[in-house]
Amino acid sequence: MALRMSDAHSLDTLIQALKRLPGVGVKSAQRMAFHLLQRDRAGAQALARALMEAAENVHHCERCHTLTQDRVCATCLDTRRDHTQLCVVETPADQAALERTGAYRGLYFVLMGKLSPLDGIGPHDLGLQKLFTRACDGIVQEVILATNFTAEGEATAHVIAEGLKAKGLQPTRLARGVPVGSELEYVDLGTIAHALVDRR
Amino acid sequence: MALRMSDAHSLDTLIQALKRLPGVGVKSAQRMAFHLLQRDRAGAQALARALMEAAENVHHCERCHTLTQDRVCATCLDTRRDHTQLCVVETPADQAALERTGAYRGLYFVLMGKLSPLDGIGPHDLGLQKLFTRACDGIVQEVILATNFTAEGEATAHVIAEGLKAKGLQPTRLARGVPVGSELEYVDLGTIAHALVDRR
Repeated sequence: MALRMSDAHSLDTLIQALKRLPGVGVKSAQRMAFHLLQRDRAGAQALARALMEAAENVHHCERCHTLTQDRVCATCLDTRRDHTQLCVVETPADQAALERTGAYRGLYFVLMGKLSPLDGIGPHDLGLQKLFTRACDGIVQEVILATNFTAEGEATAHVIAEGLKAKGLQPTRLARGVPVGSELEYVDLGTIAHALVDRR
Repeated sequence: MALRMSDAHSLDTLIQALKRLPGVGVKSAQRMAFHLLQRDRAGAQALARALMEAAENVHHCERCHTLTQDRVCATCLDTRRDHTQLCVVETPADQAALERTGAYRGLYFVLMGKLSPLDGIGPHDLGLQKLFTRACDGIVQEVILATNFTAEGEATAHVIAEGLKAKGLQPTRLARGVPVGSELEYVDLGTIAHALVDRR
């Protein structure tokens, strides 16, 4: 929706720029622009500075591929962690979820996405070659695939597993099963089927 | 949620800055930051520039209070419009909705908000004094209140109407009634009651 104001050039540019954010449509972009300009100019300037700084300083960790402003991120440099385990996750948010459990003390490889041919995201974008090289470095003894249990996450896990098997490695995958605290009656069939097959 | 990466300073700052946008929580802010840094750095820089420019150039129109980068906005300067009618709306988006109807050719006064004591938004923030002065300038003959039909919009319209009446002016209000294309069975009671009272 144009604002029908030929002079609202800076405003239109801002709304268009906000629309590029994922999950933001025209109405949200307008609301954000009006809010920033009407009530929070300091916030607008802080956001502009943060964007500039991040776009300049943040890049991929040389070892785990996550976003960081150092050459190697703090997690990879942490000597108290178990360097023989390598957990493959899709995003830093997934990594944070695993960290919160406190059940894993190994290292990570962050794909920063998942295989998605329709969006033009292939093995190279996820740094899979770097992952395979890392898995064969003689230090890593176990690769745990912790991509999401969605169609794309499963496909990504499958491709990585095939690549590792070609190098003679056998990765593990997070267990599928019934979520803690749930009642069987309300759990979907696929999950129950997997829980039956993987029973212990 | 912290990312548990002590070195992710620029990234954390960016996530915090994105969280200041209305309707954006931690998860959305993370998704936006990862998207911008992973897939759209050009978008991040374009957004930063647009924010800086807008924060510097955009201010209120001297006459109608809307956001513009000129002293007086294009709508107010348009000599083909009917300068005897002044329509009071909450936001430029509401103004755009009225413009799309093509049924109004007068001028606007944009409050850029609504009275909301809980959020600390009082008559001064909406430029009501400017509106009252404008309504008494001898050119304006009709003030049409087109604030939203929400509790806050109605309260705002009431306060403006009282202020105008104190100056001897009688504003009009957009008609309440049954929306075009709707079936009475599914229209709420308040709307039907208003449609009955205002029948013509």
